[in-house]
Amino acid sequence: MKVRRFTIEDAPLERSPGQEADIFAGNLVDERNGGPITIGYGRYAPNQSLAETMAVDDVMIVLEGRVSVATEAETVTAGPGEIVYMPKGEAVTIRSHEDGALTAYVTYPHWREAKA
Amino acid sequence: MKVRRFTIEDAPLERSPGQEADIFAGNLVDERNGGPITIGYGRYAPNQSLAETMAVDDVMIVLEGRVSVATEAETVTAGPGEIVYMPKGEAVTIRSHEDGALTAYVTYPHWREAKA
Repeated sequence: MKVRRFTIEDAPLERSPGQEADIFAGNLVDERNGGPITIGYGRYAPNQSLAETMAVDDVMIVLEGRVSVATEAETVTAGPGEIVYMPKGEAVTIRSHEDGALTAYVTYPHWREAKA
Repeated sequence: MKVRRFTIEDAPLERSPGQEADIFAGNLVDERNGGPITIGYGRYAPNQSLAETMAVDDVMIVLEGRVSVATEAETVTAGPGEIVYMPKGEAVTIRSHEDGALTAYVTYPHWREAKA
């Protein structure tokens, strides 16, 4: 694979699997591209939440809005330009706020394969 | 490791190794933390450039300013909210523009180990 540039318009956003919230993920690079990592954008409608146990190491970079990530131990909140790291194995609840959110994500290994 | 939130203030920015440009990288998560990926922020002064052959798969998310990445085949330019994927093995020249740039990066595996 070669060097690639992506914008949100490139992301085929679909409802995040296994839940009913208005949270959409769109992979730009994944297991179909031969590399080790998945790259994508996430779009959160206002006041949505999603609970999962991380099947992969997941880095979320907040581009617009705010996202909170709660674990048993604590809750962290990130806004534009801030990063949340969710290690494999952690049980998290991800929540958007009143303005919704746009995020970029990078996972290792591929989350779609790990969830299958 | 637990869920963590990071801002640019958390990044211990140092001159990017092996070059003299005003380009600074600060790891937030790396080989010292036990996970598979490195996470950090990059700060580029205006009109700087850096040539390297990628030792790892590297994802750069532009947060401020603009960054161009040139290969033999083409040049891509990314602004705020846009992503550049630089696969392992690619020879690239990364260049900032008149406003400099702030980026977030995620690499697999750890770039500091791969360069050593």
